[in-house]
Amino acid sequence: MRMINFGVIGFGTVGSGVVKLFLENQKEIQKRLNFNLNLKKIADPIMKSKEGVEVPQSILTPDAYDIINDPEIDIVVELVGGKTIAKNFIIDAFKNKKHVVTANKALLSEFGYEIFIEASKANCFLGFEASVGGVIPVIRTIKESLAGDKIESIYGIMNGTCNYILTKMVEERKDFKEALLDAQKKGYAEADPTLDIDGIDAAHKLAILTSLAFGTNVNFKDIYYEGIRDITNLDMDFAADFDYTIKLLGIAKDNGDCIEAKVHPTLIPKDHPLSSVRLEYNAIFVKGIGCGPMLLYGKGAGMMPTASAVLGDIIDCARHIVTNSIGAIPNRGYLDSNLQDKQIRFINEIVSKFYIRLMVVDRPGVLASISGILGKKGISIESVVQKGRAENGEGVPLVIFTHETREKELREALKEIESADYCLGKPLILRIEDNI
Amino acid sequence: MRMINFGVIGFGTVGSGVVKLFLENQKEIQKRLNFNLNLKKIADPIMKSKEGVEVPQSILTPDAYDIINDPEIDIVVELVGGKTIAKNFIIDAFKNKKHVVTANKALLSEFGYEIFIEASKANCFLGFEASVGGVIPVIRTIKESLAGDKIESIYGIMNGTCNYILTKMVEERKDFKEALLDAQKKGYAEADPTLDIDGIDAAHKLAILTSLAFGTNVNFKDIYYEGIRDITNLDMDFAADFDYTIKLLGIAKDNGDCIEAKVHPTLIPKDHPLSSVRLEYNAIFVKGIGCGPMLLYGKGAGMMPTASAVLGDIIDCARHIVTNSIGAIPNRGYLDSNLQDKQIRFINEIVSKFYIRLMVVDRPGVLASISGILGKKGISIESVVQKGRAENGEGVPLVIFTHETREKELREALKEIESADYCLGKPLILRIEDNI
Repeated sequence: MRMINFGVIGFGTVGSGVVKLFLENQKEIQKRLNFNLNLKKIADPIMKSKEGVEVPQSILTPDAYDIINDPEIDIVVELVGGKTIAKNFIIDAFKNKKHVVTANKALLSEFGYEIFIEASKANCFLGFEASVGGVIPVIRTIKESLAGDKIESIYGIMNGTCNYILTKMVEERKDFKEALLDAQKKGYAEADPTLDIDGIDAAHKLAILTSLAFGTNVNFKDIYYEGIRDITNLDMDFAADFDYTIKLLGIAKDNGDCIEAKVHPTLIPKDHPLSSVRLEYNAIFVKGIGCGPMLLYGKGAGMMPTASAVLGDIIDCARHIVTNSIGAIPNRGYLDSNLQDKQIRFINEIVSKFYIRLMVVDRPGVLASISGILGKKGISIESVVQKGRAENGEGVPLVIFTHETREKELREALKEIESADYCLGKPLILRIEDNI
Repeated sequence: MRMINFGVIGFGTVGSGVVKLFLENQKEIQKRLNFNLNLKKIADPIMKSKEGVEVPQSILTPDAYDIINDPEIDIVVELVGGKTIAKNFIIDAFKNKKHVVTANKALLSEFGYEIFIEASKANCFLGFEASVGGVIPVIRTIKESLAGDKIESIYGIMNGTCNYILTKMVEERKDFKEALLDAQKKGYAEADPTLDIDGIDAAHKLAILTSLAFGTNVNFKDIYYEGIRDITNLDMDFAADFDYTIKLLGIAKDNGDCIEAKVHPTLIPKDHPLSSVRLEYNAIFVKGIGCGPMLLYGKGAGMMPTASAVLGDIIDCARHIVTNSIGAIPNRGYLDSNLQDKQIRFINEIVSKFYIRLMVVDRPGVLASISGILGKKGISIESVVQKGRAENGEGVPLVIFTHETREKELREALKEIESADYCLGKPLILRIEDNI
């Protein structure tokens, strides 16, 4: 029987998971294959698993190039992360005509264009299922299951850290800081949580999904993103009063010649399937002309779930190597030559319903002034709620739900409202997705 | 560019959907292919679409064998359903070395063994994504995405009719008959709803999934099934009081040498993702050693969603035809030679927690008698609730939640309870899945 060899670069959490799952499950995996799949080498500078996974010393090397340059290795699994050496490893692997599997969303969302071109030049496979939504099979679903369909929109809970924090804020009434601390204690947030809570990680993933779904090339840098730092329990309460849940969503829509691609906290109907996605789970909601609404849900991170997705890609690649059919399914679903540049709509041009939370002085005439300013910009109000009363010029929260309006006009109006003497502090705006 | 031709047998709802989606979306589909995909013929005795889809008269034929015997056709799409002529069409297509795509769950769950063997003999592709969960990509996920994983259990809402009825019973307090009537009016239930509401359709799908997930061969006939006819609003209320939802689930578990595979209404925790699957939607919840818990959700039936899944299979097949790599991914995920017979555990041997609803005479001593009978069989009670009071020997509902017990003992105890003079009518038992 033919032997397909793979090498793993990076013996950190995900690398350890891949090795552990492969070794523990090798017997079952072999039942699915008419060839031998073999883990030939693991490269890591410290020559051991971060997670205590035991392997024979003989397969360990400190040098990634012992894998990249090994003529017997067919598949290079890049799990070091980051955008510098990882990029070199992948490009060099393709130069050596090796196939690559990676979970590196930051790299693909910023340098995907270059990397996919190199893969194509070398006629090599590039597997990246684990880069979006961890174990959730959304890449394969888009490229294969929905190959006959046309995706209209994607709404994804793509960052487990944020979803964990928002869940704790709603269910346990923790404030943002407490919930973040909780997430850090549980290992769901880094010591520096910026990448997660500011929406950057979700934007990385959305760039990859948007590119695949719409047959285009979206760079992370083109994606508008906002995080969840400014969400308060008050906002959760107001949202709940109007039957909404607040979730950090990556949203992509195909409007024909231009597309929307943005990440921000969003009010969604509380009976929508995405609303019931709790804690650190991720979920991707896809709508297409044929399939209608679909939801794929699972663990978006973590050692074993990510490993499962990586190993799925390794096997997919190996199956196509032995049948000499790499390229049967194009790496990006579309043929390279048919990828189209599509313009991304500026956030200011996007029409949406809005939730506006203001802190205002509790005195007569304030609402008249605010609604006047909104009215001048053509923004109509669906409902207004003021919670509580205040004396002596103290602030009370005032929340406005608008009808559909372009973001540009809304921002202009808010600027004017913000400069009024009755407006205390910076208003918060959140977008509402009713017809998700 | 090479041309791959497919023919569609059956111009009913799903066949019409496939043709409609393909024709409407052909331009987008072509961008993903380095060959031409062509709908060459449609066979249907009445020579027209049930759904009014317009096609040139020249591609219509009344005779399925005009497709099966056409040397230019590569892929035969069987969408007539049923277990008689459909089976002949598929077997004959394989004899002619043609690949097959089907949505026929009844056929595959009863005659899958024979059909898959014929496919292998002919070295042909058999696509059946649409046979389970409509558009939900669960077949591909198990065969490809989870190829490195080991599935431990599957819990699926696999019948939209039942889920619609149960949703209406909970949300609108309709009784079973009203909810069924509603489902029939909306087109979610047939005039004769037996196949759906008695759990047969779900058992068909579960047989297919269980076979794939555990690398074995499960026939529909080996699956224990119960439907939802006996569920009342009272049961919904009791379940809700204890934070449960009642769903008709197909459940498959791998216990090593033997497996569980059964369909029945089940009490599941109300914060479980399956609990929030409403109306006609389907959802498959999968747990594996690597992936952890995953959920795939979408429309389990209907013209366009089913068509999307069928078309995905047609394209998958075509991509492997042009790269000469049919068989790269075995039709059943495992190599034929490695499929293992696994025994299915008899329902009586399965250990579970139970919900028991009795109608009993409201008089002292009844509970003592019932708990005595249960105790004798080693069944311990977690809680007991009696709702309301009755006079003159009328019945009151009494509900018992048991701890884990083998079904055999429970049934024996119930037989004894049923024969007691205080027991009015037949008790209802439902199984509880707490650790789903």
